Amino acid sequence: MVIELLTSHSSVRKYKDIPLSREEVQNLVRAGQHAASSHFVQAYSVIYVTDQGKREQLAELASNKRQFLTAGAVLIFCADYCRLASAAELHGEEIDYSYAENMLVGAIDVALFAQNVAIAAESKGYGICYIGGIRNAPTKISELLGLPDGVAPMFAMSIGVPDEANEVKPRLPVEAILHENSYDTEKYKQLLPDYDKTMHDYYLNRGSNQKDTAWSEQMTDFLAEPRRTHMKEFLAKQGFKFN
Amino acid sequence: MVIELLTSHSSVRKYKDIPLSREEVQNLVRAGQHAASSHFVQAYSVIYVTDQGKREQLAELASNKRQFLTAGAVLIFCADYCRLASAAELHGEEIDYSYAENMLVGAIDVALFAQNVAIAAESKGYGICYIGGIRNAPTKISELLGLPDGVAPMFAMSIGVPDEANEVKPRLPVEAILHENSYDTEKYKQLLPDYDKTMHDYYLNRGSNQKDTAWSEQMTDFLAEPRRTHMKEFLAKQGFKFN
Repeated sequence: MVIELLTSHSSVRKYKDIPLSREEVQNLVRAGQHAASSHFVQAYSVIYVTDQGKREQLAELASNKRQFLTAGAVLIFCADYCRLASAAELHGEEIDYSYAENMLVGAIDVALFAQNVAIAAESKGYGICYIGGIRNAPTKISELLGLPDGVAPMFAMSIGVPDEANEVKPRLPVEAILHENSYDTEKYKQLLPDYDKTMHDYYLNRGSNQKDTAWSEQMTDFLAEPRRTHMKEFLAKQGFKFN
Repeated sequence: MVIELLTSHSSVRKYKDIPLSREEVQNLVRAGQHAASSHFVQAYSVIYVTDQGKREQLAELASNKRQFLTAGAVLIFCADYCRLASAAELHGEEIDYSYAENMLVGAIDVALFAQNVAIAAESKGYGICYIGGIRNAPTKISELLGLPDGVAPMFAMSIGVPDEANEVKPRLPVEAILHENSYDTEKYKQLLPDYDKTMHDYYLNRGSNQKDTAWSEQMTDFLAEPRRTHMKEFLAKQGFKFN
């Protein structure tokens, strides 16, 4: 049953006008907190955005009006070493989280946590969508939400009662993902053309936003230009210097 | 029911001598693939380590004999832009994934995927444990598993039939994690001493490995020294230069 829930996931971007209660959001976040955390650092925070003005500014900054304005709840997921710095202060110590390792731990910790929140929400009949678009304007969004040093927004999530049902997108064949004992480049090179055919059919025939493209083509276009080159400087400003 | 499954998670480090079948591992990985992926890049791979010699070497390199030698399955989760580079090659293009943004996307993508694998496994009655210890020796482990440029191991996971049941560790109070509209440092500063008391009781009284400590103390000790300072150089070698 749980596996059926996991494999039926598709992003929901259109919601009915039914807000989640604060208590529901708390319960989802509590479920999220039970994900594993590296050495139990719990290096994450969530900003639950209920203020209409802030939701409007987020919608502008992340170029995503539909979700930020209509979702039943808007959550901003952050990697967080500020709370760990406060914990160390209790013992008169300073911590140095400026290393690449710390950024990785924060990004992985918050993602494990968020995926639990997503699954908890979907198990209650809600739809969700991850929104990486907040990394288009991380400095302004951090100012808007008062994020201190040691905190960096990684992604947002919209949650709500679905007003659409998207088809489940075909994933890469498991053989292209799962290697046994050694990484095998040749195997997936052989599998990509067939997967492209599958995705071409999917993109042409899906319920909305049809397009004549395939996965490898989409990826090539998407990654043709460097992505979000401001991130290094933004993260350094927050204390994540990749030392 | 799903939320009960999520909130009952505790890491399992001791397994019965019952291997998972290859088919079971494939099914868990398929369930993992249904997690969301940033722009559908699917920027992850898993190395399923069945070779006894390689499991022994991993056990040494990650200083974790018990899990690498006794788990029913050992999976190494990697951020992967190599497959995306292959996809672009089909169109005669090269991609540049040397930016901090690309590393973040890879780390987040593989973590969302892994958390689905974890939940799928736990829903089948297996226990799991994330193992960050592979980042102690990423260069040697990458050689052992033949990881090409664009691929970096992020963490491992042991999966198996539990031979122990650990208590669920008390998480930070939700109020210390969840902020409304603005990040609130003061709120959690007030909550940390009580949480320390809770964790002190937990560490003193749990079933095994009792210790006289609290969360803030543990964190302060853990982060007193820079962590895994070799990661920057290793990641740069794999092509993740944090540009």
